[in-house]
Amino acid sequence: MRDQLAAYCVPIEAAEYRRTEPDDRRFDDFLIPFDRWEGSAPMLALLGVPQDEGVRRNGGRIGAAEAPPAIRQALGKLAASIGSRSLPDNVRVLDCGVLAVENMSLEDVHRRQEHVVGLLLDSGASVVVLGGGHDTALPDGRAIGKRATRLGIVNVDAHLDVRPPAIEGSHSGSPFRELIEDPACRLGMLIEFGTQPFSASAHHVRYVLERGHAVWMLGDIRRDTLDVALDRVVDALDACDAVHLSLDMDALASAYAPGVSAPASDGFRPDEVARIVERIAALPTCRLVDIVEVNPRYDADGRTVRLAAYFAAVALWTFAHRTRCR
Amino acid sequence: MRDQLAAYCVPIEAAEYRRTEPDDRRFDDFLIPFDRWEGSAPMLALLGVPQDEGVRRNGGRIGAAEAPPAIRQALGKLAASIGSRSLPDNVRVLDCGVLAVENMSLEDVHRRQEHVVGLLLDSGASVVVLGGGHDTALPDGRAIGKRATRLGIVNVDAHLDVRPPAIEGSHSGSPFRELIEDPACRLGMLIEFGTQPFSASAHHVRYVLERGHAVWMLGDIRRDTLDVALDRVVDALDACDAVHLSLDMDALASAYAPGVSAPASDGFRPDEVARIVERIAALPTCRLVDIVEVNPRYDADGRTVRLAAYFAAVALWTFAHRTRCR
Amino acid sequence: MRDQLAAYCVPIEAAEYRRTEPDDRRFDDFLIPFDRWEGSAPMLALLGVPQDEGVRRNGGRIGAAEAPPAIRQALGKLAASIGSRSLPDNVRVLDCGVLAVENMSLEDVHRRQEHVVGLLLDSGASVVVLGGGHDTALPDGRAIGKRATRLGIVNVDAHLDVRPPAIEGSHSGSPFRELIEDPACRLGMLIEFGTQPFSASAHHVRYVLERGHAVWMLGDIRRDTLDVALDRVVDALDACDAVHLSLDMDALASAYAPGVSAPASDGFRPDEVARIVERIAALPTCRLVDIVEVNPRYDADGRTVRLAAYFAAVALWTFAHRTRCR
Repeated sequence: MRDQLAAYCVPIEAAEYRRTEPDDRRFDDFLIPFDRWEGSAPMLALLGVPQDEGVRRNGGRIGAAEAPPAIRQALGKLAASIGSRSLPDNVRVLDCGVLAVENMSLEDVHRRQEHVVGLLLDSGASVVVLGGGHDTALPDGRAIGKRATRLGIVNVDAHLDVRPPAIEGSHSGSPFRELIEDPACRLGMLIEFGTQPFSASAHHVRYVLERGHAVWMLGDIRRDTLDVALDRVVDALDACDAVHLSLDMDALASAYAPGVSAPASDGFRPDEVARIVERIAALPTCRLVDIVEVNPRYDADGRTVRLAAYFAAVALWTFAHRTRCR
Repeated sequence: MRDQLAAYCVPIEAAEYRRTEPDDRRFDDFLIPFDRWEGSAPMLALLGVPQDEGVRRNGGRIGAAEAPPAIRQALGKLAASIGSRSLPDNVRVLDCGVLAVENMSLEDVHRRQEHVVGLLLDSGASVVVLGGGHDTALPDGRAIGKRATRLGIVNVDAHLDVRPPAIEGSHSGSPFRELIEDPACRLGMLIEFGTQPFSASAHHVRYVLERGHAVWMLGDIRRDTLDVALDRVVDALDACDAVHLSLDMDALASAYAPGVSAPASDGFRPDEVARIVERIAALPTCRLVDIVEVNPRYDADGRTVRLAAYFAAVALWTFAHRTRCR
Repeated sequence: MRDQLAAYCVPIEAAEYRRTEPDDRRFDDFLIPFDRWEGSAPMLALLGVPQDEGVRRNGGRIGAAEAPPAIRQALGKLAASIGSRSLPDNVRVLDCGVLAVENMSLEDVHRRQEHVVGLLLDSGASVVVLGGGHDTALPDGRAIGKRATRLGIVNVDAHLDVRPPAIEGSHSGSPFRELIEDPACRLGMLIEFGTQPFSASAHHVRYVLERGHAVWMLGDIRRDTLDVALDRVVDALDACDAVHLSLDMDALASAYAPGVSAPASDGFRPDEVARIVERIAALPTCRLVDIVEVNPRYDADGRTVRLAAYFAAVALWTFAHRTRCR
């Protein structure tokens, strides 16, 4: 594992900051860079994918390639506790840094990402992936789907991302169409969650529905209350033996997440997204959470980076507590 | 109609962007510039008023004159669908571009606006007007009021805008006083909706109440829940044969709408305002929605422009579906 | 009083703006600068503390020293009314301007602040203090605690601020530990209100709980609903003969309050904080509200300054109406 990661990944330095108390535990104390990882197979892993070529192909504004190191550094500084409960001392997260992508085509990046995520899943880890454009979800979905009998995906997003690939190939608007149409991915249930009015084309909604998948509009989720909607999502995922949660940060109102490739008019609040991550990542079948489309170039004083780090912390925290219960 | 508009209006170019799928329908496909309009009277019309002289007279910060083209371009790019429902193919919106206002006094602009809006109303259209300062609502109210027996106005706003006119004349803080005091406007019921604490002078509140009109404070709306408050607003408008909805973007919390002339401390969320527009524009008597006080100079990465475009889409969508039911 | 204030304080100029109507009453009409104060003891007082040395010592980003004049000017412009109710004409707020702090050590600033706040409390005034870093709460708590039998503090904050003092001394992360550990302050009940996940160290939470104080996590407050949580807070303060409300502006989501020293991921909305201030400041035992950690250097078009001014208005309004009822 360690050798393989050394061939494909580059470590991220932790941020520098001051700590004066030994009991002041941060996520940095639990994130172990792959080049210092010892011993057994990881239960938890973190991987960054620093590319925005898929965004460029989709006509979007680039910058998402800069997100993974920024999110990783913000995550490391967070206190590793909720109230008086700390992350247990024996928790260790294999920090894979960022995928090495220099001078590689997007197709090669996707293949490398699928390979590394596959390695991590095969070793038994539950994985948090930091994008990158939303095409990050394509190799993620392939890696987990090829290891499942029936894959469930929850895409938390203002958009659907089921456009056809472009002439150049995959892009940030096409991952879920490609996953639907690739039988090797064994996609049993795609749940589009938080789609916004006037942000998705009707024929794309029909495309999703006609294939037996689901579209939850933001307004419907709120009318039912989020917890009721999540109950139904969890029910719908019951028949899946693997679950992939994909969180596009433009699912949040741009007041909360200004630094994204394609900001939406309305959207979820931070507490709503935290609740979604908690519920889905708590499923024993959920082995993969990706957090994508953060664009630091358009951020406001690190607000979106910090929020993405918070959701990564919620995912890791939930994975860690679920793991301990087994 | 077309000749008259050619004399008073200037077209707005649609934004350039890439579309690769013929089924990917946007509002641009439904907005027909007036110089290409053929045939019958329009059911729906859109008009921009690029002036902020009323803001300047009110001591505010100028910039609202730049809003209409920006909002129009953002509107055009929106998908013309909510979930799997598309805007019906036979819907057409007469896009009047912006009013020609160069070298004109504010009084002349107001007269021209009242004339053009009157033409549109007379032709049977329901109209969305993009301001401009809030004095945009004055010629709007005059145009619709003079054609009604009893006009109802809902002003969604942090403020009341019932100041007396200045020595120079009308300004962005005075439209509703002028409409109240002009018997030709036949204003039967003004509902100030979303007024904020410490944002309106008590003697202005009393001025409104003493004339039999209504003030709904933001806190009262939320205590009752928005839907209950809207039920009462709809009841109060029942006796009106024409309804004018005026949406000042500073009614929203400035986190959501930073680009306005006079940001307020608290305010509505986007979903609340969308709900207000849906409910009021669904009334068969509602023939006019204006969206005012967007100031692109103070905006954050187009957030407020995009949100105003979203509300314009909600208004047009609601008008279009109401029209079809008749 | 007036002479003492002249020795320790510097007046703040009101902002310049246009008013055309005599009935247009603003807070500026009720804020009387100390050098023009006549006659009886004040019922209400406002004091600014322009320092951020405690933030610097805590490794934070400085700028909070610039907040008091900015908040004071924004407060002055607010309408002195909620709906049709005006602030009663006989209300007068002693405006102490800002504490003179030039060339003083933080320890000397704290001593001077404790002295001036003590003078105001002794004269019978209820006091609003505008910080400054959160160590502003230390001399505030000392001044009110030394005059009480049992002090209650509500700290509305994403964080706990119970770190140990640094080698240099007090800092913006240590005030509540110092108040807990100083028997002279007679702190009977500290309520940490709005603490966020991953924003406070578990051993700090335990430190607070083990001393019999309370920590309300943001998520718990919302699960119970804010009003139920506030009912319990009010119950818990029942045994206290003096109450100090400390509002760290980073308790709000950074979308609403971007201009703070240490922005948090999630947080309260403006209406929630206004409700907290209304409920706590309405207690007859509540004699002190401080509003801290505004950092104008990181603000977005004055949004945070304006919001802090709004909360100061809510506090003064609530104090004024409570006073009148006695």
